Amino acid sequence: MKKPIRQSNKAGLPPGTLLHVGELKSNTSMVTVCGFGESIFWEKSTDNVEECRKILREAAPTLWVNIDGLAQVDLLQEISTFFNLHPLTIEDILNTSQRPKQEEYDHYSYFTCRALSLADSNGAIESEQVSLIIGNNYVLSISERETDIFTAKRKRLKMNKGAVRLKGADYLAYSLLDIIVDHYFVVLEKTGENLEDLEELILQKPTEIYLQTIHALKREMIAMRQAAWPLREAIIGLEQSNRVFVDPDVSLHLRDVYSHVVQIIDTIEIYREMLSGMLDIYLSSVNNKLNEVMKILTIFAAIFIPLTLISGIYGMNFKFMPELEWLYGYPFALGLMAATAIVLLGYFKRKRWL
Amino acid sequence: MKKPIRQSNKAGLPPGTLLHVGELKSNTSMVTVCGFGESIFWEKSTDNVEECRKILREAAPTLWVNIDGLAQVDLLQEISTFFNLHPLTIEDILNTSQRPKQEEYDHYSYFTCRALSLADSNGAIESEQVSLIIGNNYVLSISERETDIFTAKRKRLKMNKGAVRLKGADYLAYSLLDIIVDHYFVVLEKTGENLEDLEELILQKPTEIYLQTIHALKREMIAMRQAAWPLREAIIGLEQSNRVFVDPDVSLHLRDVYSHVVQIIDTIEIYREMLSGMLDIYLSSVNNKLNEVMKILTIFAAIFIPLTLISGIYGMNFKFMPELEWLYGYPFALGLMAATAIVLLGYFKRKRWL
Amino acid sequence: MKKPIRQSNKAGLPPGTLLHVGELKSNTSMVTVCGFGESIFWEKSTDNVEECRKILREAAPTLWVNIDGLAQVDLLQEISTFFNLHPLTIEDILNTSQRPKQEEYDHYSYFTCRALSLADSNGAIESEQVSLIIGNNYVLSISERETDIFTAKRKRLKMNKGAVRLKGADYLAYSLLDIIVDHYFVVLEKTGENLEDLEELILQKPTEIYLQTIHALKREMIAMRQAAWPLREAIIGLEQSNRVFVDPDVSLHLRDVYSHVVQIIDTIEIYREMLSGMLDIYLSSVNNKLNEVMKILTIFAAIFIPLTLISGIYGMNFKFMPELEWLYGYPFALGLMAATAIVLLGYFKRKRWL
Amino acid sequence: MKKPIRQSNKAGLPPGTLLHVGELKSNTSMVTVCGFGESIFWEKSTDNVEECRKILREAAPTLWVNIDGLAQVDLLQEISTFFNLHPLTIEDILNTSQRPKQEEYDHYSYFTCRALSLADSNGAIESEQVSLIIGNNYVLSISERETDIFTAKRKRLKMNKGAVRLKGADYLAYSLLDIIVDHYFVVLEKTGENLEDLEELILQKPTEIYLQTIHALKREMIAMRQAAWPLREAIIGLEQSNRVFVDPDVSLHLRDVYSHVVQIIDTIEIYREMLSGMLDIYLSSVNNKLNEVMKILTIFAAIFIPLTLISGIYGMNFKFMPELEWLYGYPFALGLMAATAIVLLGYFKRKRWL
Amino acid sequence: MKKPIRQSNKAGLPPGTLLHVGELKSNTSMVTVCGFGESIFWEKSTDNVEECRKILREAAPTLWVNIDGLAQVDLLQEISTFFNLHPLTIEDILNTSQRPKQEEYDHYSYFTCRALSLADSNGAIESEQVSLIIGNNYVLSISERETDIFTAKRKRLKMNKGAVRLKGADYLAYSLLDIIVDHYFVVLEKTGENLEDLEELILQKPTEIYLQTIHALKREMIAMRQAAWPLREAIIGLEQSNRVFVDPDVSLHLRDVYSHVVQIIDTIEIYREMLSGMLDIYLSSVNNKLNEVMKILTIFAAIFIPLTLISGIYGMNFKFMPELEWLYGYPFALGLMAATAIVLLGYFKRKRWL
Repeated sequence: MKKPIRQSNKAGLPPGTLLHVGELKSNTSMVTVCGFGESIFWEKSTDNVEECRKILREAAPTLWVNIDGLAQVDLLQEISTFFNLHPLTIEDILNTSQRPKQEEYDHYSYFTCRALSLADSNGAIESEQVSLIIGNNYVLSISERETDIFTAKRKRLKMNKGAVRLKGADYLAYSLLDIIVDHYFVVLEKTGENLEDLEELILQKPTEIYLQTIHALKREMIAMRQAAWPLREAIIGLEQSNRVFVDPDVSLHLRDVYSHVVQIIDTIEIYREMLSGMLDIYLSSVNNKLNEVMKILTIFAAIFIPLTLISGIYGMNFKFMPELEWLYGYPFALGLMAATAIVLLGYFKRKRWL
Repeated sequence: MKKPIRQSNKAGLPPGTLLHVGELKSNTSMVTVCGFGESIFWEKSTDNVEECRKILREAAPTLWVNIDGLAQVDLLQEISTFFNLHPLTIEDILNTSQRPKQEEYDHYSYFTCRALSLADSNGAIESEQVSLIIGNNYVLSISERETDIFTAKRKRLKMNKGAVRLKGADYLAYSLLDIIVDHYFVVLEKTGENLEDLEELILQKPTEIYLQTIHALKREMIAMRQAAWPLREAIIGLEQSNRVFVDPDVSLHLRDVYSHVVQIIDTIEIYREMLSGMLDIYLSSVNNKLNEVMKILTIFAAIFIPLTLISGIYGMNFKFMPELEWLYGYPFALGLMAATAIVLLGYFKRKRWL
Repeated sequence: MKKPIRQSNKAGLPPGTLLHVGELKSNTSMVTVCGFGESIFWEKSTDNVEECRKILREAAPTLWVNIDGLAQVDLLQEISTFFNLHPLTIEDILNTSQRPKQEEYDHYSYFTCRALSLADSNGAIESEQVSLIIGNNYVLSISERETDIFTAKRKRLKMNKGAVRLKGADYLAYSLLDIIVDHYFVVLEKTGENLEDLEELILQKPTEIYLQTIHALKREMIAMRQAAWPLREAIIGLEQSNRVFVDPDVSLHLRDVYSHVVQIIDTIEIYREMLSGMLDIYLSSVNNKLNEVMKILTIFAAIFIPLTLISGIYGMNFKFMPELEWLYGYPFALGLMAATAIVLLGYFKRKRWL
Repeated sequence: MKKPIRQSNKAGLPPGTLLHVGELKSNTSMVTVCGFGESIFWEKSTDNVEECRKILREAAPTLWVNIDGLAQVDLLQEISTFFNLHPLTIEDILNTSQRPKQEEYDHYSYFTCRALSLADSNGAIESEQVSLIIGNNYVLSISERETDIFTAKRKRLKMNKGAVRLKGADYLAYSLLDIIVDHYFVVLEKTGENLEDLEELILQKPTEIYLQTIHALKREMIAMRQAAWPLREAIIGLEQSNRVFVDPDVSLHLRDVYSHVVQIIDTIEIYREMLSGMLDIYLSSVNNKLNEVMKILTIFAAIFIPLTLISGIYGMNFKFMPELEWLYGYPFALGLMAATAIVLLGYFKRKRWL
Repeated sequence: MKKPIRQSNKAGLPPGTLLHVGELKSNTSMVTVCGFGESIFWEKSTDNVEECRKILREAAPTLWVNIDGLAQVDLLQEISTFFNLHPLTIEDILNTSQRPKQEEYDHYSYFTCRALSLADSNGAIESEQVSLIIGNNYVLSISERETDIFTAKRKRLKMNKGAVRLKGADYLAYSLLDIIVDHYFVVLEKTGENLEDLEELILQKPTEIYLQTIHALKREMIAMRQAAWPLREAIIGLEQSNRVFVDPDVSLHLRDVYSHVVQIIDTIEIYREMLSGMLDIYLSSVNNKLNEVMKILTIFAAIFIPLTLISGIYGMNFKFMPELEWLYGYPFALGLMAATAIVLLGYFKRKRWL
């Protein structure tokens, strides 16, 4: 989530040029088409344009076309022609640094957002753009990576589980959205655990490395907020889109997803506040360490300098210094030093520096 | 109020799966049903599904069904079937990390919020999700813990105290809301006292422990604000819900609860500002302590180093040093040192360092 | 203005219980009723319920009932019965930690806000809740303290001064509001003077005491802002309340009061910014003092340590040290020290540390 | 722009008392009346009430009455009677600490704002309240100072320059507003130059004086923002005032003035950010200076303390110390010191402290 | 982007005076007129007023008039007369410190914004004001510099590439806007790279120079935000302008540009947060350096002062000091010193200071 834009290579080209914009996250493209209804279910995959065309023509009450990977623009082109998509939609799908948004076209709703997932067990966040195109009896879902987060959904569809088979495209779209939003929670939970670990580490031993970690996490939280805020607006857009989401029950479900997104935004806010707190604790502990160092210096200097003075006094070369002649002059001097040191140590103890 | 989400275990399950989401705060479930009217009052409790079904069928002008503990999903299921609740409502009740919200269904209003209470006398805050379902002649109240905050209310109902017996479900719902909001004040007051204690402690002796306390309290305030803000919106939602709250007098009372919530939000804001102030005071006192340490070092060094120089001078081995031959050379040197020390002490006194 | 809430003792009581909530600021209650019209004016005071009932029945075109002190709830009850006030209104009057608000009832407008006044010449702010109930031909004003800020107003009414006698209840309500808002200016001006004094003190000699003063003032400003913001909204409410404020001229006057409140909010904002500035200046001056201390240490150490080295060198016991034999070896060594000291002093002078 | 309010002396007086509120900026009042039309122009000045009455009765298509200085309330009273102004308008004109606002009266628009000008070449800002009253065929402009910013305008009117002579009162009002807003730019530009100078000074040599300057400028910027924000709203008010500004062309011009005010607000925001940046730079440079001081102390101490140790070693009185007997023992010791010093200097050089 | 205003020289002039306001970025003016339609394309350039008049009269379905450089006001005047532009439009074009805005006139839409471009490879940002005037069958584009960012567009038009030739003035306007917005991305990307470089530099070696760089970049981001925010509003204005943008397809494209601007604003926000993070890292590393310096001082002082004390003790002149008589007294003393040093070094090692 580091470089939010990589669009400049388009500056200078005419609007409407089909060109993948953004880092290419997969070298292949795979189309998976599911046709299903109350009693029908078939699923076919291909990366061949011709074959794709054939598959799309097969009949089914509801069609779910899923594309993984944006490498083969021709596949996307083929599907876009079949469903009669607006050129701007294709442009938006290919520009993988889009801001989440929802747009109403003549015969379909276009919805795009960032899907988050954990790249590894350390909590590194992987982000990809997922676009949904929701028509009357079809849903197109386009994601950037090869392995998509919708695979489990398809399995359940096949095994005739859940309500999707009975309902239409709008309910399918809702359940895909639900999967995306649920993955935000997975990511946030891992981040929350990392935050708690980091807090403990900082309290134990603050080093400059953590400062960078704090700021990296802060920026990640901002990026997540910038993904979640427009997602919220986009869901409102879907809810108000009267054409597609006519079923009041699906509307209720969408409202539920909406309230989850609001909860995500709240959590991000809490995490940001936690990070601010850690920053304060880090900075304050740097100051405390300085205090510690200064105390040690002060104790050393304050104890040894007076002793050195005593030794200096008895190192003076005056002719008439009675102590020098004493039999126990030397032990007396050492005792004087010890006594001075003890008094000073007591002073610092009382000041609670020791 | 630490982990606002624990929802990730649902990611991957189909929407609509009935599953308790969130930490389970009670191992049992207990249903208490009150039937009441102007002249009727009965109250029955059970944790058995069959028995529950029977009780629900008993007649009363108004029915108040209270569920404590979410352990037995089947009880909730039974009640939900009786009152014909939407599956999403049940899901929301079982997901105990909901954001406070109000939702209008066909024949009832769903309202959920966080109820706060003091866990112990130190001011530790316990938070549970309370859901209210408000129908035309019934109210369902669902809380997570075994001992609910509504017990006192039931006693009063039984003793025919208050206006509730005369009025219907909407007034009952209002008075439950009123109890929840009043508990916020209890919590805020305890927090306020803790804040004042903390402030005094920080002024007396700032240690790093307080920094963490400040940030823990800050986070608690954010969590409370995130509970109170949507509560405010949810109450607005109830007020505008024309179907249930038709009685203008109940509307007036709701408006009153609303203004209490706004006052709670104001108080949270003041507390946040107090915490910011404490943070400043803490950080500044760390700096002041450094100043203190440095002053002591400076005084010691600045006084003893010159004296050491004097002793060093009279420790030089020059052949011709008249002072060394003096009879009172040694006392003279000691006197010189004393005079130097006095002058320097005077200097630091004038600088108000002593 | 420290403890904004003291409402928890009501948690657990049924809604509608008449009970004074908040610190009791007066042990007595005094009712003063003024009846007036273009040619009529009478004024009667009592703290007796029976007598009060009688007075209220006397005729006058406009009635102004003023209550000072909330100790005798029965007096308030009597008046409330006479004017047929809603129970919630009475509750709100008795809960003296209300947020300023305006509420429309069937036959009157209810308005409550905080009235500020200076407790003493140091600028300590006293705050009380003032409630206004504005009917068609009467105004009720309820304040917490014995000596109210409206006394001067009554005197002017008696002497037939000002436009109030000619106009009705709405104009009277406006002029009471005007008095309350004008007292905000008195308080703000004193605060402004205190701020300027504080700023000067901090610039002269920053001590930790001022840090606490700054934060106390900051909190006071927040409390004032939290009193002024809803006051603003409440005045808007009054302005839009079509029933009572029908006279367009009174509306103009209300608009004027409104713009004063906005000006108060602006001033509070400036004061808050001033306080932030002082905080910066304080913190920076703590740092500067540290710099000062360190400079003195550095100068002392840097000058005397080299001199000590010189004395140490000539205190060495080598057999062959030509300088020791010199006739003017001792003055030479002293001269060397003086020269070193002068060079170093020159260096620190050039660095502008002296 | 230091004391935004001085209104408290009115608290206690009845509303409607005519009294100048705020610092009196001029001891005289001067009325200048211009009557003009396409072919007419006359201009007369007076500070006498009788004469003023006569002048006002002279005929002209459009009348521009300009009042400089608020010392003579009777002059204002006379004019107010002539134009039949509402008492609240007069009160607002005399209260020179008004917040900028626009108010619609029956037969005129009242507009008040703060006019800024440079008091001297250092950029000290002078602020006065300017009120405009815009009727169908007259404009009243009232300013606090003797020398007003509208003099040049009158000269151009006389010489029949510009479009004002052809157009009516609304265009005149617009052009007066335009003059006021243009003066904001003059002030902002000078402030901008001062900011750049200050930034350079702080980078060269940060002293505590600049901290106060920064905060003084910050407060000035807040005061300007608080002048500019309501000015913006007031201009919107004028634009929407259908009665006076009927000419669509004047509306276009007003919109232009409006966008200038928005630009002023933007610039103030940039200046505030610049000041925040300077504050950071100042505070950081204080820290850097401390670093500098500490480095010098460390270098001195770290170099001379080991040398002193060497001299101390050879000052010990052991019977058997071979070096003491060496012929070149003394030069050897001095050489050892020199070598130690060189090694340490090299160390600090490598650390880039020298 | 340093001095956002330079408008003060107009203060005092009558409104309506045609005068270039702002820094003159080009000494010449060049008019390029393109006439085009589905099958027509011609392009002519001139800097002569007479010739310009002739060219403008040539026929074409759509006319694109591009002006580079504002030096020759007469050229602009000529064109303005031809297209019957409002004087305020001309004023706005000539005032090159306009805030981006969109204004609707009788027969055209006026749109102005800041176009950004990279001045050199270091990422220095060049900003110029670009104005668009969009009529029914013509577009006027006015930029401040000689070399405009629209040259490539004209080449494509000539070669009959893209959809512009087939569509009208509104689509041309959209594609010019698209070019401007795309250049924001170019600038932002370069800034992003610079930010990453800066971050690395600060982490490696924080010097005060970077503090200024951070604040310069911060201010640049504010300036960009102040260019982008009103640009967003202006595009909304264009979208809602029903007269010009009637084609629903162009509306879709405009919405696309709009979402790009929102993305730009998001990115600016991320960059601002990055800069805040860098500031924290810089300030913290200054503190860390102080810590480092203090540790070195403390280590030196704490090790050598005790050794000096030992040498001082054996330099005392007591008659009876047994160690002095020892044969190995001197090596014993040196050994004692070495042992002390080793113990202390161990202590500091355990404290992880070495």
